[in-house]
Amino acid sequence: MLNMQSVDTLIDFAFSEDIGVGDITTEATVSSEQKAIGTLHAKSEGIVAGLPVAERVFSRLDSDLTFTIFVCDGDSILAGAPIAEVQGNAKTILIGERTALNFMQRLSGVATLTSQFVKAVAGYDVKIVDTRKTTPGWRALEKYAVRVGGGNNHRFGLYDGVLIKDNHIIAAGGISNAVQCAKKAAPHTAKIEVEVESIEQVNEALEAGADILLLDNMSIETMEQVVKLIDNRVITEASGGITLERVQDVASTGIDYISVGALTHSAMPLDISLTLRHSGT
Amino acid sequence: MLNMQSVDTLIDFAFSEDIGVGDITTEATVSSEQKAIGTLHAKSEGIVAGLPVAERVFSRLDSDLTFTIFVCDGDSILAGAPIAEVQGNAKTILIGERTALNFMQRLSGVATLTSQFVKAVAGYDVKIVDTRKTTPGWRALEKYAVRVGGGNNHRFGLYDGVLIKDNHIIAAGGISNAVQCAKKAAPHTAKIEVEVESIEQVNEALEAGADILLLDNMSIETMEQVVKLIDNRVITEASGGITLERVQDVASTGIDYISVGALTHSAMPLDISLTLRHSGT
Amino acid sequence: MLNMQSVDTLIDFAFSEDIGVGDITTEATVSSEQKAIGTLHAKSEGIVAGLPVAERVFSRLDSDLTFTIFVCDGDSILAGAPIAEVQGNAKTILIGERTALNFMQRLSGVATLTSQFVKAVAGYDVKIVDTRKTTPGWRALEKYAVRVGGGNNHRFGLYDGVLIKDNHIIAAGGISNAVQCAKKAAPHTAKIEVEVESIEQVNEALEAGADILLLDNMSIETMEQVVKLIDNRVITEASGGITLERVQDVASTGIDYISVGALTHSAMPLDISLTLRHSGT
Amino acid sequence: MLNMQSVDTLIDFAFSEDIGVGDITTEATVSSEQKAIGTLHAKSEGIVAGLPVAERVFSRLDSDLTFTIFVCDGDSILAGAPIAEVQGNAKTILIGERTALNFMQRLSGVATLTSQFVKAVAGYDVKIVDTRKTTPGWRALEKYAVRVGGGNNHRFGLYDGVLIKDNHIIAAGGISNAVQCAKKAAPHTAKIEVEVESIEQVNEALEAGADILLLDNMSIETMEQVVKLIDNRVITEASGGITLERVQDVASTGIDYISVGALTHSAMPLDISLTLRHSGT
Amino acid sequence: MLNMQSVDTLIDFAFSEDIGVGDITTEATVSSEQKAIGTLHAKSEGIVAGLPVAERVFSRLDSDLTFTIFVCDGDSILAGAPIAEVQGNAKTILIGERTALNFMQRLSGVATLTSQFVKAVAGYDVKIVDTRKTTPGWRALEKYAVRVGGGNNHRFGLYDGVLIKDNHIIAAGGISNAVQCAKKAAPHTAKIEVEVESIEQVNEALEAGADILLLDNMSIETMEQVVKLIDNRVITEASGGITLERVQDVASTGIDYISVGALTHSAMPLDISLTLRHSGT
Amino acid sequence: MLNMQSVDTLIDFAFSEDIGVGDITTEATVSSEQKAIGTLHAKSEGIVAGLPVAERVFSRLDSDLTFTIFVCDGDSILAGAPIAEVQGNAKTILIGERTALNFMQRLSGVATLTSQFVKAVAGYDVKIVDTRKTTPGWRALEKYAVRVGGGNNHRFGLYDGVLIKDNHIIAAGGISNAVQCAKKAAPHTAKIEVEVESIEQVNEALEAGADILLLDNMSIETMEQVVKLIDNRVITEASGGITLERVQDVASTGIDYISVGALTHSAMPLDISLTLRHSGT
Repeated sequence: MLNMQSVDTLIDFAFSEDIGVGDITTEATVSSEQKAIGTLHAKSEGIVAGLPVAERVFSRLDSDLTFTIFVCDGDSILAGAPIAEVQGNAKTILIGERTALNFMQRLSGVATLTSQFVKAVAGYDVKIVDTRKTTPGWRALEKYAVRVGGGNNHRFGLYDGVLIKDNHIIAAGGISNAVQCAKKAAPHTAKIEVEVESIEQVNEALEAGADILLLDNMSIETMEQVVKLIDNRVITEASGGITLERVQDVASTGIDYISVGALTHSAMPLDISLTLRHSGT
Repeated sequence: MLNMQSVDTLIDFAFSEDIGVGDITTEATVSSEQKAIGTLHAKSEGIVAGLPVAERVFSRLDSDLTFTIFVCDGDSILAGAPIAEVQGNAKTILIGERTALNFMQRLSGVATLTSQFVKAVAGYDVKIVDTRKTTPGWRALEKYAVRVGGGNNHRFGLYDGVLIKDNHIIAAGGISNAVQCAKKAAPHTAKIEVEVESIEQVNEALEAGADILLLDNMSIETMEQVVKLIDNRVITEASGGITLERVQDVASTGIDYISVGALTHSAMPLDISLTLRHSGT
Repeated sequence: MLNMQSVDTLIDFAFSEDIGVGDITTEATVSSEQKAIGTLHAKSEGIVAGLPVAERVFSRLDSDLTFTIFVCDGDSILAGAPIAEVQGNAKTILIGERTALNFMQRLSGVATLTSQFVKAVAGYDVKIVDTRKTTPGWRALEKYAVRVGGGNNHRFGLYDGVLIKDNHIIAAGGISNAVQCAKKAAPHTAKIEVEVESIEQVNEALEAGADILLLDNMSIETMEQVVKLIDNRVITEASGGITLERVQDVASTGIDYISVGALTHSAMPLDISLTLRHSGT
Repeated sequence: MLNMQSVDTLIDFAFSEDIGVGDITTEATVSSEQKAIGTLHAKSEGIVAGLPVAERVFSRLDSDLTFTIFVCDGDSILAGAPIAEVQGNAKTILIGERTALNFMQRLSGVATLTSQFVKAVAGYDVKIVDTRKTTPGWRALEKYAVRVGGGNNHRFGLYDGVLIKDNHIIAAGGISNAVQCAKKAAPHTAKIEVEVESIEQVNEALEAGADILLLDNMSIETMEQVVKLIDNRVITEASGGITLERVQDVASTGIDYISVGALTHSAMPLDISLTLRHSGT
Repeated sequence: MLNMQSVDTLIDFAFSEDIGVGDITTEATVSSEQKAIGTLHAKSEGIVAGLPVAERVFSRLDSDLTFTIFVCDGDSILAGAPIAEVQGNAKTILIGERTALNFMQRLSGVATLTSQFVKAVAGYDVKIVDTRKTTPGWRALEKYAVRVGGGNNHRFGLYDGVLIKDNHIIAAGGISNAVQCAKKAAPHTAKIEVEVESIEQVNEALEAGADILLLDNMSIETMEQVVKLIDNRVITEASGGITLERVQDVASTGIDYISVGALTHSAMPLDISLTLRHSGT
Repeated sequence: MLNMQSVDTLIDFAFSEDIGVGDITTEATVSSEQKAIGTLHAKSEGIVAGLPVAERVFSRLDSDLTFTIFVCDGDSILAGAPIAEVQGNAKTILIGERTALNFMQRLSGVATLTSQFVKAVAGYDVKIVDTRKTTPGWRALEKYAVRVGGGNNHRFGLYDGVLIKDNHIIAAGGISNAVQCAKKAAPHTAKIEVEVESIEQVNEALEAGADILLLDNMSIETMEQVVKLIDNRVITEASGGITLERVQDVASTGIDYISVGALTHSAMPLDISLTLRHSGT
């Protein structure tokens, strides 16, 4: 589910910036023979995400460490609950600890926030999707965390989905032209999504043959009107200023998808810590 | 001030995940001859950080784009203020837009939060420093943003500073042994910092010859007591659960440094957008 | 139009395998001061593709070389016609010659074959598209050459388009389930394409809500029947055993797209040579 | 026999261009528990080459897949014959299928064409060798396929063999000078090969002390004359316009080596397919 | 103790420059089934360093080779003594031999020279430390060899220790300013070391609050005077023109550290050879 | 003459190990506006090598630095002579200084030692060549320095020259077999060199058709005998235990080539320093 090749690139980057030529404290104070068990605990409740990444962090650092999970990615946990355990050489556990936690805290934060949005629209036939507002270098990981939290993924990048925004419309000389150009040039396997800001634009986009309409920053009232007007002829997506407070109202308009930038750019980390106990040599 | 070599690595990573084989929408709808001017605006007030990164994003994508800044990294801006302008080929501006914004929003967020902590302790002889709780891949950038926001950097990683924590103390058989080991093995250019949780440990660390004491999760009262006890014989640093609400009280204890994980793991992004106007072909 | 970053990777690979530690013949026999002009000629007629790649080969090797084109990618040329000229240091021209030609010959070959397929279906409302049967490492380049030759691109890889084949259908327990799963899990920006081998499957796929039907290895007669049955409700694509001899018959069925693996795996290289004349020191 | 380090580079490149962030169809439709067996069959007769590459493709993707070969690289197979079997997780087999086939089809094509040239000169004391006209990125692989097909390798690149061509001769001021320069500058472990186009040049090259003469684009008659003239004093090689039709005549001249660009640039792929059968979960 | 990730980078670099597309001699003359045992012997006495690197060289080349050590890094050996044994495929042992020896000879040379310096100051309370005068690409390895030889490491690079030299002093407008700037800008975990050349500068540096004084190129007499003057208030380090002949006199001044560039830039290699005996197929 | 692509790899490696996240001393003490001129001086006499590398070090670090050379690679210089000057930003000059010097000192050391060997055999018709006993990562650079010092290069690695040693002979079942295998498998552009240790082996190798004989560790007397016996029928090379004291005697035997491992593994660095003077802001 997670492409580990690109995760490895990021893990190696993290090691090079955190470990560099070595952990001078641990090298000096911890014996190479010391064994230990480290337990990951959540300090607040939330949705766990990133266990395969944490496991990979430890295994790339020291293939002799064993990593045992107590919950799975996507599970909801209470504050204080043990999440996983890493066992083996005390030095390598200590060296990898911060990197593993830095990954897990951020990913669990994204999953937790996503699940809050998903819960907020429970009962509506709508899907919460992410955006391209991700942390550079983390696109695959953060989109994975969104899925773990119960959300869906929008396109991954500029290369795998057509989304015609205002600047494209202006450049192409109108919605109709823009949609025509896209149909001609993009692979026929891609749907054509168009960002619209007014009812006039909605009508233009429908006529031009758009497959999806992105209702950008519209009021709840306008959205209701537009959804009715469209009447399921194409897919609808709401975007812009979506907050936990407002998301249920948006869902109530009958929209098909709600894309939320906050999922990936404004998630608070889930507080997770690692407690170590020495276990002989 | 920023090592551009590692920034380039992250920018290339961001391009590969966002652009991949190409922006199929822009390729289809925007003419290669179209010129444009894009203006970056802040949508809320804060401290700007990341302009050299945004410039680099655009210049690596298209060396013919010109990037003009209206403010500098570290400047405080009001909502709506123009930050910078990128001028040139409309296609490459559109392709680079999201990546440039993703960098700037996060870095400006870190700088803004840092400056709030720095302001909160204004008047005290104390420095706000960061931690290793950074986004994997972003260590150099986030530490740069902390400096831009008026904070100072703690060690960069495990390799350039000695910080003896509880697990090192247990593994070495006590604070005294741990400090001795570190003095013997670490380069003589490094100070020895020891994490202490009680007055007993403070005394042990002082006797062992520690250079810096990290007071971990102590109450304001204990910290005051400890700072008095130490009486400037060594450097003191407070850590653990430091919030904007509590930081001034911590500063008032007379502590030398306050390290704040939130600077890098819990900063909200500064909302920045790019407005494009076409400017002929 | 061509992502030069991945092209550079392949050029560097080519340099490392062809030049390695240096051209021991040229180093020994050609003076560093010798200047020259090299002219690229086609030895047979065809469609030129790869000029930006050849230019890049020479400029990466020696940024002082100047490359002047006489035709553009996509132009049809006669045997003997000059294509471009590279001017500057004789040594670096000689060193880069083979690599530049190896790129241009293959890409021009793909463009030439594509244009023959496109010409063969002239007058029909159908598009010739490529497949994933490309040379590993050359996906972006060969798909570029297909466009240069007048063809269109199918999806770039497994990541940017849904194509449900027989094995997916079996694994999912039928076409209906497979389409449902894909609609649920894939980004909503992607169309659902289903490979069908019989009229029964066509009906199943239509009911399941497929967006595109890939008619795999069907006879001309069956295709005609299927196209009529579908009656423009969804997009149709023919695939399997498409040759220059047969492609017009396939087009005559009224199909929308014809995908041809041969475009990229069976194109003969266009014979191109470089003639050098020395031009002083 | 094959340097797997550079093969891995190409495999990773292939994965990144074909798989990218993931196979959205297979992820959606195939269960992670599904097991399968995939059999590779040739659809036409030829010489198999690339089995270690196909095995590597699958094992790098999923180290739990097992790959069993029924024939070896270099074996001649009939249409329909099973070549190898891959067993394990259905998802990863499906994801790796196209990449494995793209490698095997091209390499088997090169081996098959080489073996046809080798057979065409059977009975003559001559060797068929390749050239530097290889697919950029594929030098090592295609030269391996030539050996598999019974051919021999010429130099690998510009760095490991001296080959003085017309432009080197002109630049050095004649054959004699060029050979002298090469003897002085190139490692003494390398033979000096000179391209000659006339009997006059043959004599010059012999006097200059060349070790190998490359007879470039000579008629059969001239070649016969030259081979007689040389009388085994140096090694002879024929090059230029060598086709399957003409190669026996060239061999009959008594030449030692015949270098054939077509082996690597004009080989048609051997048609190989993978049939999958599900085998429980 | 050795960061294997950066060692692997250097090993791969070494393979690419020595092995490239393959060992054409071994491929031609040694059967793939041939087994062998290779024994590493020292041809002169010294301190062994680099066994984990030699082991890594062989295991990266062929994971089936077994490497058995007879001594450990840091052990003193006599001429002729066996050091280690590598067992397995004869071809891969022969291919890896030179690379393994090139690593071990240099590292053992550094360790041997270091141990000579360490012995020369035996009985004095002083430590021999290295400098940044290392072979580019070998910093981590050579600093490891210094430790193996009984020396200590100075800072690893410009990033992990403050060392204010004459040019910094001039640029900052004096020692006092330079020290102030460093205290303000560098992480508080770093000590401030200042290079001083006269007693006047010593006094300035002491007043400015330097933590370490580097006595640069001082005479034994001046050093004695300075050490007395400093009276253990700060750490002292001698540097410049330290030879085996002179190092004991320097130690006798009571200095704390002596840094010696020669350890890494002027160590003669320890002569080590590999003897192979074939052991069946 | 130097492949800058692989040099860049080593320079980047050097930067990453020396500079890492930044020069904390220079950042703190030197203003970004400060300009300076740095002059490289030799502190002892020798042959300069590595100026293009030093220039590259500075230009990769800061493309605004200008580098002016006063001598060329290969020039003989006296102690104290200025070699080159770097001008521009004081900070970047200081940051690059050590890396530039580390390269130049080693390369000039290799060139100086080589020139001493070359001078020692002046008047004899013999060439001094290097071996594969180079510093891992430095093969291309050290072989370049050998050429700069007046020496010649032996093969670059295992891939570009055939050298049959004792173990190959044993594995192949004798010299005759080994030479036959090599002639059959290696590219016909490579000469066959055989290591011989006795007159019996010399005769065997001559009969087998070797092109070059490597006389390994033979006494001067035996070498004289062998050279006479061979009588210019093949090329001769002496190897093993060649010192400056002994090399002239070896040359006097009439041998064609003398290969000297010491050139690259035992050269002392040439002492070079950089003096900086500030030149305004």
